[in-house]
Amino acid sequence: MARMTRRGALTTGGAVAAAGFGGSALAQAAAPASIERWGVAELAFQAEATGNPFDVALSATFSQGGTTVTVPGFHDGGSTWRIRFSPPETGLWTWRTESDLAGLGGREGRFEVVAPSAGNHGPVGVVAEYHFAHADGTPFRQIGTTSYGWPHQPEARRRQTLEALRKTAFNKIRMLVFPNTSVATNEALHPYERTGPGDRDHDLTRFNPAFFQRLDACVTALGAQGVQADVILFHPYDGKHGFDEMTPDQDARYLRYVVARLSAYRNVWWSMANEFDILKSKTDEDWDRLFQVVRDADPHSRLRSIHNWRRYYDNGKPWVTHSSIQNGSAVLDDVRAETYRSVWKKAVVFDEVCYEGNLDERWGDLTGQEMVRAFWHGLVGGTYVGHSECFPKPGGTAGGFWLGEGGELRGESWPRLAFLKEVMEAGPKPGVDPIDKWWEQRLGGVAGQYYLRYFGDEAPAEWKVDLPRDELAGGERFRIEVLDTWNMTTTPVEGEFVMQKRADTKYFFNDPARPTITLPGRKWMAVRVTRAG
Amino acid sequence: MARMTRRGALTTGGAVAAAGFGGSALAQAAAPASIERWGVAELAFQAEATGNPFDVALSATFSQGGTTVTVPGFHDGGSTWRIRFSPPETGLWTWRTESDLAGLGGREGRFEVVAPSAGNHGPVGVVAEYHFAHADGTPFRQIGTTSYGWPHQPEARRRQTLEALRKTAFNKIRMLVFPNTSVATNEALHPYERTGPGDRDHDLTRFNPAFFQRLDACVTALGAQGVQADVILFHPYDGKHGFDEMTPDQDARYLRYVVARLSAYRNVWWSMANEFDILKSKTDEDWDRLFQVVRDADPHSRLRSIHNWRRYYDNGKPWVTHSSIQNGSAVLDDVRAETYRSVWKKAVVFDEVCYEGNLDERWGDLTGQEMVRAFWHGLVGGTYVGHSECFPKPGGTAGGFWLGEGGELRGESWPRLAFLKEVMEAGPKPGVDPIDKWWEQRLGGVAGQYYLRYFGDEAPAEWKVDLPRDELAGGERFRIEVLDTWNMTTTPVEGEFVMQKRADTKYFFNDPARPTITLPGRKWMAVRVTRAG
Repeated sequence: MARMTRRGALTTGGAVAAAGFGGSALAQAAAPASIERWGVAELAFQAEATGNPFDVALSATFSQGGTTVTVPGFHDGGSTWRIRFSPPETGLWTWRTESDLAGLGGREGRFEVVAPSAGNHGPVGVVAEYHFAHADGTPFRQIGTTSYGWPHQPEARRRQTLEALRKTAFNKIRMLVFPNTSVATNEALHPYERTGPGDRDHDLTRFNPAFFQRLDACVTALGAQGVQADVILFHPYDGKHGFDEMTPDQDARYLRYVVARLSAYRNVWWSMANEFDILKSKTDEDWDRLFQVVRDADPHSRLRSIHNWRRYYDNGKPWVTHSSIQNGSAVLDDVRAETYRSVWKKAVVFDEVCYEGNLDERWGDLTGQEMVRAFWHGLVGGTYVGHSECFPKPGGTAGGFWLGEGGELRGESWPRLAFLKEVMEAGPKPGVDPIDKWWEQRLGGVAGQYYLRYFGDEAPAEWKVDLPRDELAGGERFRIEVLDTWNMTTTPVEGEFVMQKRADTKYFFNDPARPTITLPGRKWMAVRVTRAG
Repeated sequence: MARMTRRGALTTGGAVAAAGFGGSALAQAAAPASIERWGVAELAFQAEATGNPFDVALSATFSQGGTTVTVPGFHDGGSTWRIRFSPPETGLWTWRTESDLAGLGGREGRFEVVAPSAGNHGPVGVVAEYHFAHADGTPFRQIGTTSYGWPHQPEARRRQTLEALRKTAFNKIRMLVFPNTSVATNEALHPYERTGPGDRDHDLTRFNPAFFQRLDACVTALGAQGVQADVILFHPYDGKHGFDEMTPDQDARYLRYVVARLSAYRNVWWSMANEFDILKSKTDEDWDRLFQVVRDADPHSRLRSIHNWRRYYDNGKPWVTHSSIQNGSAVLDDVRAETYRSVWKKAVVFDEVCYEGNLDERWGDLTGQEMVRAFWHGLVGGTYVGHSECFPKPGGTAGGFWLGEGGELRGESWPRLAFLKEVMEAGPKPGVDPIDKWWEQRLGGVAGQYYLRYFGDEAPAEWKVDLPRDELAGGERFRIEVLDTWNMTTTPVEGEFVMQKRADTKYFFNDPARPTITLPGRKWMAVRVTRAG
């Protein structure tokens, strides 16, 4: 029988409700509960299987008007099966189950989907080829971070991580499903049913629901805070349990289980792998196939990417929704960053560009300024960037820092990334595009309307206010502000700039009365030029 | 009947013979002529067609041992048909024709293929993923130039162009099949049979053999000089004749004709289009199809690329052998250049990076130094670059310079590109790869053996001799030379450098006794580090 249920979350019920997160109450048949658009309608059923309950086929068809969505269910331990669906439209939805287990099939009911509550903007998708927006059109200004192992930490540490996130501008976090075995503080939960004490003593046909319930809780807690969960499905940091070298059938079974559990949460993104090219057991053809398993299993069509180490997967392939790149050198200038847009014609997230930290590893020794610089170059290049931190606690364990375990943020970049996000939010929708790209303008924005120039570790004493001719006819008025991206100040330049075609070149416009502005000769400055009329 | 024939060329017979270029004498049946491996075996037949002779189907099957190659023939005007084949192996080859025209089918014969003469290294292909080499393994160090319209100029100007090329290091030239109609000095030859005086008064089912014989002669003359002909099949610079907006059938008929005529010449490369994205009449799907037409029609599998304006074609597609890129900003640093290798995993040629010249156009105003800089950045990034020049003659016509018409070279870069090529020839085979890429080393070469660092418009007074740890164990000895890439000098640094792991970082090796070298504080310098033992 279907029964009312509510998914647990780490945060308070109020916050969950405000964001429309977690499963909402679904009564059976006659008295449909009301669900928010883009919320989660969760059906729960009790039944007894002979054989392996994870082998039971279960799905439900959800219908409204001409729309029909078939959603896979999953076994959640004991006698419980669930089906989670995120309705894309308001109105009356009906549902009916199918199953090969007597008692699970042929169940039916209906529920009303109502307008989303404040703060529920729907799932994030790619818009305008290179940017992200929620389903209601609200731009999603990606300020990502990574904490691979935070879901595997004890609850106190998980709460600490969520608390830390709440102070920041981070709206996406990359996290592993399978634990990184080198993190000593992991909570002792195994993804599969154990058959003995050994690392590989498990039954890969039977999941451990407690492990995945914890993952559900992490995802819903993030969602309640407005943070996207970039769920990393495979990674090369195991070496003990063999989750990185399962058979194609085991891989597919695992993917379908995770997708059935999580895809209804509107803050889920799929990352097929971290550093996929270290996983020697899988070829590019394997990844092609696994991408398609996820795509085909996911009725909610969440975003899909794959993250590299030294070799890129072909992000031009149709099942890749956006590229997720590791390459610190790519964001040392905005033109380098832009290249990835032009070649793959997709939204670009530089998810790993080295981390702020004090490690003896070159991938973990960025200064705060360098971390912030990467984000600004990415922005001007029309792309997005990801942060993390490696400041080990004195006497802490390997990975005992944000990147590995979550916990507290100790770096200097994260407040500056909040300032950056404010600049993004005040900027063009859905995002910044390079202007007159390939001609070394180093400008992002919207030609004729909005221009951003970032100077990084240069410390110029002035800037020539030359705007490329695109979308300018002469007579346009602009205001200019000087941004100190490190000290987080915005200083308007007095008066307006009235553009005219320059006499000595056909390529630029300026205000002949004010061809330059003065800059303070410090590093980490930017200039914002905004149309005034 | 098959008769002996020899393709004309602009250069002397001696030079043609030395390179094994042009068609060689093929007697019929009993007395086979001898052909060089990778030369051209040309069969010529006389017959009379009723109907359109360009509609006649003709091919020959060439066999040797287990190898069989079917080669398309073509009508060459009057009563003449030809079939051109470049044998990939030595030994006795037999042939037999098929045709739907009585008298053309069922002809047969044989010929002996002998070892290539000196200077004949075979056609160029992609090797080691990112480089080019001739079929005999000789590296092909691409130093390209472009003269779009040189094949359409009167003979005296064509001879001048070939003479100019002979003084340079250029070993590839990009050229249009269809004329650029804005070039006033074009020779009056039309690619199709005229039906009246109007620009579009032509029969697109009937080619003008005289036009294509001139093209043959241009290709063979280049071949005799060791220059690859990058044959551009479509372009957007017409606007009068409609060659840029033919039907799919007309496009395919044209491509098959050009391929049948030219593919046997071992110096032919196919460029599907120049600035393909300006050709609004064709979609990416059209280009997909046309690439496949060329691939399927070409029994010699010559290199295939497509050249962009502002938007890249997906060079990851399987029928693209290497990328041919227009983007001057991509070669302003070697890391930008390298990106194109990593994303498409193919050899990269930056065929257009703006041109040396004195135009008021930003695409034609590079200094000689800037032109040379692009090549050096390309080299260190593991890629290849192309040159051209725009110095209009006083009182000359539009396009009256090397880029448009050929003729004389007036710039300063070309001698420096010969110096560059000497550096390439003395360097690793098949080419230079970035070392410890994505970590801002700015080094190209082969780790442990050979390192190139190029400083562009920096003018450093010294260089820290830090070699990334890859392939170093300590104790390796190196020699260092300082290259002045503009003044074309090579200055050895005295003595050797004995590498040790640096005490303060695990990432670099140096010689603690000589951690830096002195540089002259001038622009356009490079450093070459070569293993001595």
